[in-house]
Amino acid sequence: METESISYLEKMRQEIDLLLDQYLPGENLYPQVLHKAMRYSVLAGGKRLRPILAKTSYMSFGGQNEKIIDPAACSLEFVHTYSLIHDDLPCMDDDDLRRGIPTLHKKFNEATAVLAGDALHDLAFHLLAGSGSARAVMELALAIGTFGMLGGQMADVEAEGKDVSLEQIRFIHAHKTGALIRASVRIGAILAGTNEANLEELTIYGEKIGLAFQIIDDILDVEGDQKKLGKKVGSDCKNRKATYPGTVGLENAHRDATLLLDEAIAISEEFGLKDNYFRSIARYIGQRES
Amino acid sequence: METESISYLEKMRQEIDLLLDQYLPGENLYPQVLHKAMRYSVLAGGKRLRPILAKTSYMSFGGQNEKIIDPAACSLEFVHTYSLIHDDLPCMDDDDLRRGIPTLHKKFNEATAVLAGDALHDLAFHLLAGSGSARAVMELALAIGTFGMLGGQMADVEAEGKDVSLEQIRFIHAHKTGALIRASVRIGAILAGTNEANLEELTIYGEKIGLAFQIIDDILDVEGDQKKLGKKVGSDCKNRKATYPGTVGLENAHRDATLLLDEAIAISEEFGLKDNYFRSIARYIGQRES
Repeated sequence: METESISYLEKMRQEIDLLLDQYLPGENLYPQVLHKAMRYSVLAGGKRLRPILAKTSYMSFGGQNEKIIDPAACSLEFVHTYSLIHDDLPCMDDDDLRRGIPTLHKKFNEATAVLAGDALHDLAFHLLAGSGSARAVMELALAIGTFGMLGGQMADVEAEGKDVSLEQIRFIHAHKTGALIRASVRIGAILAGTNEANLEELTIYGEKIGLAFQIIDDILDVEGDQKKLGKKVGSDCKNRKATYPGTVGLENAHRDATLLLDEAIAISEEFGLKDNYFRSIARYIGQRES
Repeated sequence: METESISYLEKMRQEIDLLLDQYLPGENLYPQVLHKAMRYSVLAGGKRLRPILAKTSYMSFGGQNEKIIDPAACSLEFVHTYSLIHDDLPCMDDDDLRRGIPTLHKKFNEATAVLAGDALHDLAFHLLAGSGSARAVMELALAIGTFGMLGGQMADVEAEGKDVSLEQIRFIHAHKTGALIRASVRIGAILAGTNEANLEELTIYGEKIGLAFQIIDDILDVEGDQKKLGKKVGSDCKNRKATYPGTVGLENAHRDATLLLDEAIAISEEFGLKDNYFRSIARYIGQRES
């Protein structure tokens, strides 16, 4: 990956890590157990892709108020973390390990994991409402509800152990992961007051990188390095999960991901930005190892 | 109870039931299982106190747009139902019966109950954002987060089996149930554009009826009729829950509830409304049997 992409992503990731710490309730505040649990899961690390996308969109389209975008960007990571916590529960995927450390219900207990997920879900709307934009709130709620992320989650559960078509796998990915990634790009732009034409182009960019991101996630579960990933590889196969390479083969999966990212980059070039960080993000997704 | 109070509450409850049905996703829409589960829990009945409070506030202070208040009122019932679904889970209170029928995880399964709760939580913010008021969204998020409902829930879990002081039980009740009831009153008024002085008075009204409501809930768990309640009585005692009568005795609990409701009615009289439905609601709470 070129140095420019790495340094932008790394600088942003560090900045987001500091913001997340700042916007999470302190663990000395009541109810301490819940706040500790929320912090444990959020601060365990991660690529911070969703907040980075939101901030990149906001700044690329002229947004300048950090008090608006910073809490909004964090809200996207809080939603992402809430979804992982509930996904990992024994009644769902029953995972023991996440980002190289025990999952929340393993470290604390199930009741705390349910409530900490709920609390992060809620904190996300609290912070996003602070932007003053009901439209941004609506955008997030739609992206992660039954017609978005939760619908994809349910489709994923239902597809387990079954043969699925390419159309079905695309539905699962577009909803389970894609909807929140698309919303991250859009919310940054909405808060910056971007015009509708750019917003529509950005939406397509978001859809393409979202699908590519999940295809690569599936590929890494087959080819990846367990140490870098911080979770067991081969778990999709073991859990008989519907995956993109499982449906079209590894070679076609690689090819489709590359194609989607190239198309996303082409769209981003048309905005005529001085610094095209949308390109940096797409390249980063294409080359990530974890 | 006087006829006026009964007829207002009953008329409103019927209206809210229709609205809830209307604002819930149809069970023919994908993901059907999740939508069926959401509808099962919400449409199982209930007093609909929170939406009734929101609509009463809105209309009492001059609000006239049903397209604003109706979805907002429903959002409060959806949040209430989400909290009950997650509360009933095996890892939380492990309840089998709610409103006279099996709890959601018993009727469907645990994974569906977790996701349906999440979906209702989310739908609430979607609908409330449709009012265009980021302030109303913020109000709800704060009321049900770790400094509100979830904090009370955690305190309740932690207090199980322990001797608790009157101060602690008031904290639990004010947060676990009180915060959402207070927010329901406030959100209706905020959407109607009520002035801050009235909003402050309404807040005190909301706090008083909220605490009275929960004290009476605790009393009904001791003295109530299982058939009318639709759930087992004596469960607080069995689960060694912290309750108001358990702390101050039944007689004092009755006295405090009556006093709180009288005070709430006195506050509502000062608004000088032509029809004081806040009084009807307070009287209804004092005389409810389920």
